[in-house]
Amino acid sequence: MHFDTIAIIGVGLIGGSIGLSVQKRKLARRVVGIVRREEMLRKVVDHDAVTEATTDVEKGVAEADLVVVCTPVDHVIPLVVRVAKACGPRTIITDAGSTKAAIVAGSEQALAAGVGAWASFVGSHPLAGSERTGVEFAKADLFENRTAVVTPTENSKAESVATVTKFWQALGAKTLHLSPEEHDKAVAATSHLPHLVASVLAAATPVEALPLTGGGWQDTTRIAAGDAHLWQQILANNRVHTLNALARFETLLLEFRQALERNDGPRIARLLAEGKRIRDALGS
Amino acid sequence: MHFDTIAIIGVGLIGGSIGLSVQKRKLARRVVGIVRREEMLRKVVDHDAVTEATTDVEKGVAEADLVVVCTPVDHVIPLVVRVAKACGPRTIITDAGSTKAAIVAGSEQALAAGVGAWASFVGSHPLAGSERTGVEFAKADLFENRTAVVTPTENSKAESVATVTKFWQALGAKTLHLSPEEHDKAVAATSHLPHLVASVLAAATPVEALPLTGGGWQDTTRIAAGDAHLWQQILANNRVHTLNALARFETLLLEFRQALERNDGPRIARLLAEGKRIRDALGS
Repeated sequence: MHFDTIAIIGVGLIGGSIGLSVQKRKLARRVVGIVRREEMLRKVVDHDAVTEATTDVEKGVAEADLVVVCTPVDHVIPLVVRVAKACGPRTIITDAGSTKAAIVAGSEQALAAGVGAWASFVGSHPLAGSERTGVEFAKADLFENRTAVVTPTENSKAESVATVTKFWQALGAKTLHLSPEEHDKAVAATSHLPHLVASVLAAATPVEALPLTGGGWQDTTRIAAGDAHLWQQILANNRVHTLNALARFETLLLEFRQALERNDGPRIARLLAEGKRIRDALGS
Repeated sequence: MHFDTIAIIGVGLIGGSIGLSVQKRKLARRVVGIVRREEMLRKVVDHDAVTEATTDVEKGVAEADLVVVCTPVDHVIPLVVRVAKACGPRTIITDAGSTKAAIVAGSEQALAAGVGAWASFVGSHPLAGSERTGVEFAKADLFENRTAVVTPTENSKAESVATVTKFWQALGAKTLHLSPEEHDKAVAATSHLPHLVASVLAAATPVEALPLTGGGWQDTTRIAAGDAHLWQQILANNRVHTLNALARFETLLLEFRQALERNDGPRIARLLAEGKRIRDALGS
């Protein structure tokens, strides 16, 4: 797998890590970083995340074989549209957004409407986020042994799906194909609900009790330090599935409350054992 | 600080780490491990956690200057009583239990009733637990830069409080004095509620979604892998404070649900920002 030019729109933790990894693995001759703010131009090059940088989306993608949109989820669709209009006829576009149904549907609709009729979009989501944001935390090995979900639909070109899949594999990721809906339903339980719960748990902690936090609180609330605006967009984008996952959580939480209120030791132990069973099924 | 003999009752993660640390720091000539099962005798010595081991509580503590009870919380009070009857008149007894009010009150009552009239009990809780249990995970540096809470009461001997405090400091911990009630209220928010929430979050995750877990789910649910019976005892021991902390959590969770149902982006962002504020107040 070798590209001449890869363009990355949004060079933060994910986009920067893609750029570092592409260069380390020599997957492309040029890695063009497309950033929003002038002051980022120098920063992303200084971090060696890309080989060149621009704030001009159209110029940045003009010669790209592959464009990866790594912005907050609310910006993906408009950017896919701009890219499709400005890129070449054989360019493949993907993204790294944490939600897929709205992004894939919106992007496919725009492309079907004749915007950049030859370009091809395939949605992706590398499960490699962190509470940290910014190119300063980017790492060339961020995707190694992580899962990257690729979300083809009946509208996807098989060749583009294969290229995007091999791209993530070339960065060291294991890939998984799911429909955009299947993806959103699953990550509601494995990512969006945990974020919501971690945030509420942190917010429910009296500041004066913080000196008595240990590893448990630190692990359980770590992702609550994530960027609030990024996560507001993700939760809003995956509202229905997240509310469904939350309902399952609330049902079990109520069971736990009742067991605790009744001081029902065996039932508390059974509830804890069930959580342990699922956690142990994953490993550490 | 130097002891002739320290006895540790229950040589698992915490007890074993105390034993390793005491030896590494040369705080005592003898470290006697007291275990329940015969097959543990060899294991705890093989791990170098103690210098000698016995299953006989009375014999094990007979010559101890300091006894540290590191068993599941439900076993602490009866063991303190047995220790007080069998140890010397100047022996200081402490424990490492995750809850303090019931343990301290029960132990003090027994000692005040004339059981081992000269022995002195002071409650402790080193915040150094883990989802792992067993002497095989014990580490000599487990307490370094961790917090150890010491919970004196009006019944405590000042000299014993000072000795127990210096003991934890000698193991590398920062110490904090709180009343048993203050301790239990704080750890309900910082440890017991997080455990309950992590457990429910893991249990609410469909097994088929596990391939889509990333670092967020792994961190948020890590402590759910803890021993169910240990944690059932802890939650039952600190039931009222844990239910109060749970009520605060439920109130905020309901706010979050309503904001998400109404698709109220600014309110979702504010709730996330509040969680981030508390999490960031601690650091990583």
